[in-house]
Amino acid sequence: MSGPVYERVALIGLGLIASSMFWAMKRGGLAGEVTGFAKSEGSRETARRIGLCDRVCDSAAEAVEGADLVVLCVPVGAMGAVAEEIAPALKSGATVTDVGSVKRHVIDVVAPHLPEGVHFVPAHPLAGTEHSGPESGFAELFDNRWSLLVPVEGSDPKAVARLRTLWEGMGANVDEMDADHHDLVLAVTSHAPHLIAYTMVGVADDLRRVTDSEVIKYSAAGFRDFTRIAASDPTMWRDVFLTNKDATLEILGRFTEELFALQRAIRTGDGEHLHQYFTRTRAIRRGIIEAGQDTAAPNFGRGGGSE
Amino acid sequence: MSGPVYERVALIGLGLIASSMFWAMKRGGLAGEVTGFAKSEGSRETARRIGLCDRVCDSAAEAVEGADLVVLCVPVGAMGAVAEEIAPALKSGATVTDVGSVKRHVIDVVAPHLPEGVHFVPAHPLAGTEHSGPESGFAELFDNRWSLLVPVEGSDPKAVARLRTLWEGMGANVDEMDADHHDLVLAVTSHAPHLIAYTMVGVADDLRRVTDSEVIKYSAAGFRDFTRIAASDPTMWRDVFLTNKDATLEILGRFTEELFALQRAIRTGDGEHLHQYFTRTRAIRRGIIEAGQDTAAPNFGRGGGSE
Repeated sequence: MSGPVYERVALIGLGLIASSMFWAMKRGGLAGEVTGFAKSEGSRETARRIGLCDRVCDSAAEAVEGADLVVLCVPVGAMGAVAEEIAPALKSGATVTDVGSVKRHVIDVVAPHLPEGVHFVPAHPLAGTEHSGPESGFAELFDNRWSLLVPVEGSDPKAVARLRTLWEGMGANVDEMDADHHDLVLAVTSHAPHLIAYTMVGVADDLRRVTDSEVIKYSAAGFRDFTRIAASDPTMWRDVFLTNKDATLEILGRFTEELFALQRAIRTGDGEHLHQYFTRTRAIRRGIIEAGQDTAAPNFGRGGGSE
Repeated sequence: MSGPVYERVALIGLGLIASSMFWAMKRGGLAGEVTGFAKSEGSRETARRIGLCDRVCDSAAEAVEGADLVVLCVPVGAMGAVAEEIAPALKSGATVTDVGSVKRHVIDVVAPHLPEGVHFVPAHPLAGTEHSGPESGFAELFDNRWSLLVPVEGSDPKAVARLRTLWEGMGANVDEMDADHHDLVLAVTSHAPHLIAYTMVGVADDLRRVTDSEVIKYSAAGFRDFTRIAASDPTMWRDVFLTNKDATLEILGRFTEELFALQRAIRTGDGEHLHQYFTRTRAIRRGIIEAGQDTAAPNFGRGGGSE
């Protein structure tokens, strides 16, 4: 490799994704100086203590000054305000990107603020854990995961290619996708599953005849996989649902319809329908393992049992 | 330890649970001779090839002959027929148990067949993986998992205590529970979550505008946890839903109600409601980790990311 991909990178927001990007960029020698800013003073102090970022700044404008790449790593609902705040401080020729889970909304609220001569290349790494905050990041987070680039109309192909090089250097596979299609695909693979998991965990917590301690003790029977998903950051997920409303509601509508059909099969004792359905879903799992997106080890290799 | 807990054990059905019990009993020196029977000739051949069971028999009646403990490890829907078949061959004083995921139905269909002088102690180990068949078992499956004993009216306390000793020897924690309460608790922690996961995976597969390969490639965004659950054995799960119908439908009813409330919050833009809900579900996850029923390592410690 011939030197860093960007001389100066600014990370705005210092949560799981930003901190993992920092460690992944350092691992790969992909950036010269990396500056960072977080709204919360506590997060900035933590970042300084653990050596997250070469320089932690006390304002977003200060962090982006002179940066070749600015990465917006704040909840989707905060993207617009941050873009407005940093716009006057952006260097001409700089690229602004983001890591938000929703793309149409981010484009709508960020693009209008960016000055002429600044490139905007929205992105979304499909990687994360149920943990959050500046201490949750690690260099390997993006290895063999997908990162989606969602260029807007008129995106400079060179700016897109350079950002692709950065993501590949951080270990990710890169695809390009249109914003609306991205939001629909993510509604299926992420947003609806998260809402469903949150719902099921809430139901278990509400049921008075089954105690919380029973739910917790016996969670290995399947439920604990839902609780992991439902432990994700509340602010991030609130914003995702509010800003990808249409696609999420469409998928939830289909889900409910399908669930009602299975409920009716249970009620009427239609074992054939259930068996066929469950056989079909098994094949999808096989595809995911073959595609290298999960381990075939039982229970994700965590050892011990789960049903 | 002073010798095996049972001199002769018969495993009827040779899937994930039976094969794991065999290896766990051998690990702990808990049984003298272990016989086994599976309905499918292929499974019996596999068992003989891999050394699963000291003796693989060609009929269930032959396997239970002289056994001190008979363990029914067949799908819940097959329990009644198997009990009827083996009843004449059972030794007086023997204990019959099972590992079914539903207890009221199993008691209703098994108990009437058992002769006077045979003890019946239903059980349910809350352990498993998404794999099935005689080759899927391993000795550690029950370590630190719960196994629930569901004694019926008039169960001999000595027979219950002996079975408890066996499960503890196989690494499990043991609790006793009433059959109806068991079925409700499992509807919450296992049966409803499984049906929901099956449904979501089916929806993803149905959606024409999002290709299967997109669903598979981008599954790490949350969906893949659902597919693991939805890869479980179709026959076993068909039987679970058909025989724990009332409790499952009750929980699904509550789930739908709650899901509609969250959908409405999304539609009306009620971010406060969503944020509060997601904050509450996070606490439940913490309880499960503190109770030792899952790992706090991100993504169950499988490495790489998931959101």
